[in-house]
Amino acid sequence: MNNILFTRDAGLELQRQLERLAPAGYFLLSDTYVRAYCLSHLGHDLVPPGRSITLSPGEKYKTLPNVGFVWERLSADGAKRNSLLVNLGGGVVTDLGGFAASCFKRGIRCINIPTTLLAQVDASVGGKTGIDFNGLKNEIGTFATPECVIIDNGFLATLPPRQLLSGFAEMIKHALLADEQHLADIMRVDLSQAASPEFLPLIQRSVAVKAAIVDADPLEQGERKALNLGHTIGHAIEGAAISKGLDLTHGEAVAYGIIAELWLSVRLLGFDRACYEAVRAFILEKYPPYSPVETPAALYEWMLHDKKNEREGVNFTLLREPGRFETDCYCDREDILQALLQIQPA
Amino acid sequence: MNNILFTRDAGLELQRQLERLAPAGYFLLSDTYVRAYCLSHLGHDLVPPGRSITLSPGEKYKTLPNVGFVWERLSADGAKRNSLLVNLGGGVVTDLGGFAASCFKRGIRCINIPTTLLAQVDASVGGKTGIDFNGLKNEIGTFATPECVIIDNGFLATLPPRQLLSGFAEMIKHALLADEQHLADIMRVDLSQAASPEFLPLIQRSVAVKAAIVDADPLEQGERKALNLGHTIGHAIEGAAISKGLDLTHGEAVAYGIIAELWLSVRLLGFDRACYEAVRAFILEKYPPYSPVETPAALYEWMLHDKKNEREGVNFTLLREPGRFETDCYCDREDILQALLQIQPA
Repeated sequence: MNNILFTRDAGLELQRQLERLAPAGYFLLSDTYVRAYCLSHLGHDLVPPGRSITLSPGEKYKTLPNVGFVWERLSADGAKRNSLLVNLGGGVVTDLGGFAASCFKRGIRCINIPTTLLAQVDASVGGKTGIDFNGLKNEIGTFATPECVIIDNGFLATLPPRQLLSGFAEMIKHALLADEQHLADIMRVDLSQAASPEFLPLIQRSVAVKAAIVDADPLEQGERKALNLGHTIGHAIEGAAISKGLDLTHGEAVAYGIIAELWLSVRLLGFDRACYEAVRAFILEKYPPYSPVETPAALYEWMLHDKKNEREGVNFTLLREPGRFETDCYCDREDILQALLQIQPA
Repeated sequence: MNNILFTRDAGLELQRQLERLAPAGYFLLSDTYVRAYCLSHLGHDLVPPGRSITLSPGEKYKTLPNVGFVWERLSADGAKRNSLLVNLGGGVVTDLGGFAASCFKRGIRCINIPTTLLAQVDASVGGKTGIDFNGLKNEIGTFATPECVIIDNGFLATLPPRQLLSGFAEMIKHALLADEQHLADIMRVDLSQAASPEFLPLIQRSVAVKAAIVDADPLEQGERKALNLGHTIGHAIEGAAISKGLDLTHGEAVAYGIIAELWLSVRLLGFDRACYEAVRAFILEKYPPYSPVETPAALYEWMLHDKKNEREGVNFTLLREPGRFETDCYCDREDILQALLQIQPA
């Protein structure tokens, strides 16, 4: 993760990196939300005149027509092979912008500056770029590593609490994949202080967990499946919610998924029950109560269609204890239905 | 070039490779021209039912909407990460299909089966994929190597003579970049025999020249510029012709470019004048007479705007003798105008 830079002054760091990389001009990609809330923290003087590209905010704009729009702007405004694209925003901007850069003239360089907690602890690492297509998330994309990722938690001061919680679910996951100490520290977090200097090292530790796993398996062929923890059930809940037009964040779905999959870990791999209960209580206290988006039976069907399943049954990443995961655990229908019941408050 | 397979039976070789790679189903991309003229040679039984994707033929369809069409078909028809795309056709199909495969689910495997001489000796090597965008050739694309390239000159039996000549210009270029013997052999070629067993080794030798240069410089940072021989002036002629709606093939433009750039080689690097005269006479005999698409002065302006120019002036790859090239040769306006006069028959 030596290309991930942690700072309290993203603007200064961006200037340093632009000096180091000496591109033939740079372009700034963001969205209208970022322009309204994040640009003052970065510094308005870093917006290159005539080379600022602005998207509409939100996952529904992570589309091929919008990538085409970025390519048009780059091409029409004279971007060269040696130019550079700065992606400033949440995961939609960094995923879409990273994809656009990786294909423009067969690849120009980019710098990512994630401005949401989710993008800082998750999308910042791993070299995945992409857009949604044909109703499927990240159906089109590339593996492409940015020149650097600049992480500044000062941007989080303007992030709505619900969006902070969305990113925090990935931090809980990373802590579970790390060790007991990391988990204990995460469970003492006060998210109202997310933009404070003291919070930056926590982000750094969280990113380090993901980076270590990704480095061991850059093209997602084995070990990287560890990162699916909480996501098999989480994706089913998220997919069902989206299909019904319900308002649920990615992190909420993952947080519920973590509870259910830890319960499976207790049942199948002997994960410590007290630890499971503590994490469950912590999540149920921090996150909104789960209101079932579908029956457990219907959610099970969603899981069966998850693209990560390579044979019959549902494939999970589960834990023996914090830091000791097991990939490719197949669980049967009864256990999964039971696990889904654990998400609901007593 | 160990992933390039030369054969007289592309269908049999494709079957072998599909057995070796064992994809979760394969898709066949081609165009209506290929379906009409090349499928009988490959074998109709190799068209996977319900998984055949057909484009309209020609460079003007090498577009983003057509890539979107391929992605839609792959996605809707259940292509998985482990699926494979077979690109059967000329350079448009292999470039566009290679790009589509490299981004679908962040990259699925592909096999290229080039059916034109130009695609066999040029587009088959080098790992470049791409589409035209915003009026610029290959403005969007990736570097991505196919699992293998199957080259069978039996496909050339149905290729119009003018299309054969278009690919042959790249073979002349490769011979000039190789050595005197290769050049002598190329100048004895009878293109009416291009589909015969005896011609296949000539294609193989031509591909080997390009492969050696590309292997030394996969990301086009230096040595690969050797392949620009004939193309600086060739691209200017081609660009001017396209902008005026004139009917000129890529290879015709390159053949004229080779004459002009060899003349510059004589003048600036002491290339042997007798050898230059022999190549010039050979090209003028094989190719249609050059009818000026623009004044020399206007063509010079086209060169100034070529994307490969990194500083003022026009940058050429020139030859000291067959096989000894020099990249980054800057030529002045007077010499270039003079060189352009050499293309016209006496």
